[in-house]
Amino acid sequence: MREEPIVLRRRHMLAGSGAALAAAGLASWSRGAGAAGDTPAPVPTGAAPKPLPAYVSWKDPGSLIVHSGTTIETKRSVFGTSVVTPAEQLYIRNNLPAPDASILSDRDAWEVAIEGVKSPRKLALRDLKRMGIETTAMVLQCSGNGRGYFPSKPSGTPWQVGAAGCVMWSGVPVRWVVEALGGVLGGMSYMTGTGGEKLPEGLDPKSVIVERSVPAAAMADALLAWEMNGVPISLAHGGPLRLIVPGYTGVNNIKYVKRLAFTAQETDARIMSHGYRLSPPGAKGDPTQPSVQEMSVKSWINGPGTDGKPVAAGDTQIHGVAFGGLNAIAKVEVSLDGGKTWAQARLVGPDLGRYAWRQFVLAARLPAGTYTLASRAIDTAGNVQPEQRSENAGGYNNTSWADHAVKVSVA
Amino acid sequence: MREEPIVLRRRHMLAGSGAALAAAGLASWSRGAGAAGDTPAPVPTGAAPKPLPAYVSWKDPGSLIVHSGTTIETKRSVFGTSVVTPAEQLYIRNNLPAPDASILSDRDAWEVAIEGVKSPRKLALRDLKRMGIETTAMVLQCSGNGRGYFPSKPSGTPWQVGAAGCVMWSGVPVRWVVEALGGVLGGMSYMTGTGGEKLPEGLDPKSVIVERSVPAAAMADALLAWEMNGVPISLAHGGPLRLIVPGYTGVNNIKYVKRLAFTAQETDARIMSHGYRLSPPGAKGDPTQPSVQEMSVKSWINGPGTDGKPVAAGDTQIHGVAFGGLNAIAKVEVSLDGGKTWAQARLVGPDLGRYAWRQFVLAARLPAGTYTLASRAIDTAGNVQPEQRSENAGGYNNTSWADHAVKVSVA
Repeated sequence: MREEPIVLRRRHMLAGSGAALAAAGLASWSRGAGAAGDTPAPVPTGAAPKPLPAYVSWKDPGSLIVHSGTTIETKRSVFGTSVVTPAEQLYIRNNLPAPDASILSDRDAWEVAIEGVKSPRKLALRDLKRMGIETTAMVLQCSGNGRGYFPSKPSGTPWQVGAAGCVMWSGVPVRWVVEALGGVLGGMSYMTGTGGEKLPEGLDPKSVIVERSVPAAAMADALLAWEMNGVPISLAHGGPLRLIVPGYTGVNNIKYVKRLAFTAQETDARIMSHGYRLSPPGAKGDPTQPSVQEMSVKSWINGPGTDGKPVAAGDTQIHGVAFGGLNAIAKVEVSLDGGKTWAQARLVGPDLGRYAWRQFVLAARLPAGTYTLASRAIDTAGNVQPEQRSENAGGYNNTSWADHAVKVSVA
Repeated sequence: MREEPIVLRRRHMLAGSGAALAAAGLASWSRGAGAAGDTPAPVPTGAAPKPLPAYVSWKDPGSLIVHSGTTIETKRSVFGTSVVTPAEQLYIRNNLPAPDASILSDRDAWEVAIEGVKSPRKLALRDLKRMGIETTAMVLQCSGNGRGYFPSKPSGTPWQVGAAGCVMWSGVPVRWVVEALGGVLGGMSYMTGTGGEKLPEGLDPKSVIVERSVPAAAMADALLAWEMNGVPISLAHGGPLRLIVPGYTGVNNIKYVKRLAFTAQETDARIMSHGYRLSPPGAKGDPTQPSVQEMSVKSWINGPGTDGKPVAAGDTQIHGVAFGGLNAIAKVEVSLDGGKTWAQARLVGPDLGRYAWRQFVLAARLPAGTYTLASRAIDTAGNVQPEQRSENAGGYNNTSWADHAVKVSVA
């Protein structure tokens, strides 16, 4: 196996790398570039791997593909079969550079303003910790995960499968906070979260601020979370406090959340009004188009053969992950012939709840040859993972099983 | 919060630190010291914290208490509420120094001899990976966890609660391997695992080798595991291959497993015959005494107040972990008055199966004062965590809720 170099690591602490990141990290929707909600150009084939930026130097470089300082993908071949994705392997997609690490110097002092409730007020993290604890396992997935399979090459990071992970979050249920403050005011149809990133100067704040609205009903399972996978949330992943909205794409899970408001309208921040919209190919995002929000049923195979090496002929164990977004997984089928025939895979490992992914395994005996391995998930609401992606300008919500199929050579 | 120093880290790779560890790391049962199965002397109060040894330099020093090079404990106050214990915080208890890291240079080449089956043979890890995959969450707990609460101060590491964690393991079920090799031979009542540690020279191998027998029935849920918490098992935790016997204390989960034999008798290795025996106080371990094997129902509180700081008066969330060994947890009760009265706690977070622990939380309003917080778990078989420890010479199996109570000062 690979020999990993000794790397400097420092947990949960490092600052963004300042000016360089700030220059690179402005999201494309802030530049009016249209529907794409992600940032950088594809990494040219054959280019030397980029090093991890300082604020995530504690991550495992061998597990990750660095697209840019704010977009880092997990390698498909490193996903294991243990359900929970280790923090050191979890993808990064920040719409703005991470705030200065000084915000972690006193985590308990971090404040979030709760608005649109009967008794609005600011609450410090130390207050939230006294209000209740819940723990939820959730697939965290970038809206653009799978964009790399769009032949139209939408602008934005060309993620394959690795802008996703299954992560354990701990914090206080939003509904308990709301109850303590007298409940949501009438007519408030949305829950709007605002991130605490430092905004670049000289730009209209609304054009860059990370502020997203989801239906107020999503409050039911939402958390104000201070812990990820058993430790205080790292700066890179939104610590000290992150809004977690299970079943919703990554961008709706507001990092460094400083305001949680129940609102009558969706926010008019550009990341909501024009970013992350399902626009027709060639069109720019606008508020009349559907927003990228709830995740849909999806699965993919993580091994064998995803490292590009030939697979040994004979018995093999085909494994991957499947999730339903808002629904639990009912079953997963695997095809050895590119989708002509399917066999039911076995779901393995503990079931971490409907927002988590399930690991699946199919035992197969493969003689030498080449194979197109595909997986197709069905959720408990009867939704079937589709063969084809839905074309859209931003390259969002790619759940196509055909796009996620793996060609392997068996020798 | 604490500022953590930059530390050199290197994942899954580092060698034991050689002679020094070897000198320190010989288990006490190999020196004929009697019943104690653990190694070193208590860390004197007020002594400077010991640094992490090189082979676990990738762990989080701020989360750990280093008793010796082979005995490292998780601090009670760092256990979170996310069910799974991160590898960087997981305790270490090695009966011998870890083998040289070169055994990880080709993980798939690691061989384990399967014996006591119809068709005995050696299998390489690459073979095992083709035979099947299962994933199990399990409490890994040292037999001596809680020894530090024995007033008799048994020899061995004075663990408090932190020689335990809940960990996800992935590998092939032992029963599938056995089936593939024709099944267990008649009359084989035990499953005996042998570790691949390098044995110190000049000693009878049987006096030092890590070899343990469990009832053959424990095969039902046992794994030959190559993955822990989503990544290949680190050297420190028994990679490339570890025998996992859910519900059994740590020592029965053989690291670097090189032989898995179904045997008519328990092994006569000294770690089995004399180590880890429930001896009467003052007596030495011998084969007539009960062996420390299956874990029993246990719980403890991890917060608040376990960091020694005063707890703020008012609303608080008392949280901890509970597990039943071979049985799932039915309920957990919490006392605010040292066991006079009890209230039922809420189980939070996903249920990872009967071998995992559950997180529990009780919301309580505490006026200023001092409190003795205790927890008491009941498993699905009706076993109740006892008030008192069972006295024994080795300081094993401490499940006393009174011993694990936490005195907190609320201001």
